[in-house]
Amino acid sequence: MALILASASPRRQELLRAAGIAFSVQATDIPEVSAEGEPPIIFAERLAREKALTVAHSHPNDFVLGADTIVVIDGQILGKPRDASDAARMLQLLSGRDHKVTTGVCLISPIYQASPSQSATKQSATSTRIADLRSETTIVTMTTITEDEIQSYVATGEPMDKAGAYAIQGMASRWITRIEGDYSNVVGLPVSLVYRMLNARQTQ
Amino acid sequence: MALILASASPRRQELLRAAGIAFSVQATDIPEVSAEGEPPIIFAERLAREKALTVAHSHPNDFVLGADTIVVIDGQILGKPRDASDAARMLQLLSGRDHKVTTGVCLISPIYQASPSQSATKQSATSTRIADLRSETTIVTMTTITEDEIQSYVATGEPMDKAGAYAIQGMASRWITRIEGDYSNVVGLPVSLVYRMLNARQTQ
Repeated sequence: MALILASASPRRQELLRAAGIAFSVQATDIPEVSAEGEPPIIFAERLAREKALTVAHSHPNDFVLGADTIVVIDGQILGKPRDASDAARMLQLLSGRDHKVTTGVCLISPIYQASPSQSATKQSATSTRIADLRSETTIVTMTTITEDEIQSYVATGEPMDKAGAYAIQGMASRWITRIEGDYSNVVGLPVSLVYRMLNARQTQ
Repeated sequence: MALILASASPRRQELLRAAGIAFSVQATDIPEVSAEGEPPIIFAERLAREKALTVAHSHPNDFVLGADTIVVIDGQILGKPRDASDAARMLQLLSGRDHKVTTGVCLISPIYQASPSQSATKQSATSTRIADLRSETTIVTMTTITEDEIQSYVATGEPMDKAGAYAIQGMASRWITRIEGDYSNVVGLPVSLVYRMLNARQTQ
């Protein structure tokens, strides 16, 4: 029984590795589009679940972990920027204010093989698979960033593949004065939540 | 004019590098012993200042940055553990509770060369050097850690050179559920505070 991370994100992989949690990687290609009126947390959890399910089908005997991170300000979801001007727009929105970062996490357990005495039919025995779906939210405070700083930062390319167009662990660390909540969650995966979810399953 | 980091800590170097702040390194060897009754923040600031001053003497034309990080619980300062059993004792103290991490930071500016019209004597012109001394405190919440987990963690060696006997960016990330304040401060250097201190000096 192994843990498969349903994500190509190098940040998520680094976080799990640093925490000493063994895993392998299976990337997914789920379109990250929110439905009309879908609340941010529900959206992040839905994507996490879709990513995990996609990988779980072909890995019945493993734990599969899906995750999706979004940045939310004024109820508006900021995903990955489309281009440089979209990245600048996001950073202008975040400058000098608090925002929320939510990561939806879905842990799918291996198929539970009930013994014949516990199960009347083979079908019911093989259909048991638990999806533990949760989310973690962190409040992030960013200092005021000047237009020049935004342009220089966007030019580095760092914002391009990050939700909200910044990397708290990268150059943007200079502008993050404070967070309330889990830090790794802002990087892309709430490590201590994942650790507790894994422990809860493996000790059952 | 360059920035010299008066610290051999690889974590501090990584944080500055990630934030895109250029620097060179000059290690110091200041004894980290608190005076009887010395309040934790005063202690951290004093060590940061001593480290910076030691390096500043031989670098009159550079910025010099000193820093010292301590963990505080029940008013008690936890520095680097002396040995494995001292590390275990610290982790037992921190398990299942909140604690504070304070980093004292001292930025010494290059010697200010006043022009003859601004200064009556050469002596007064060359004696001007500003030491900006500050500190940042972050509250850290750790889950309950079992005695087995503490023993395994101490055996990895990760706790040995860290204040409070844990690395928030390492395996201990699995036990840190929440922080309030600056994250890089817990790793060893409050990056956004340092960035603002540097900007304040360089734009004068």
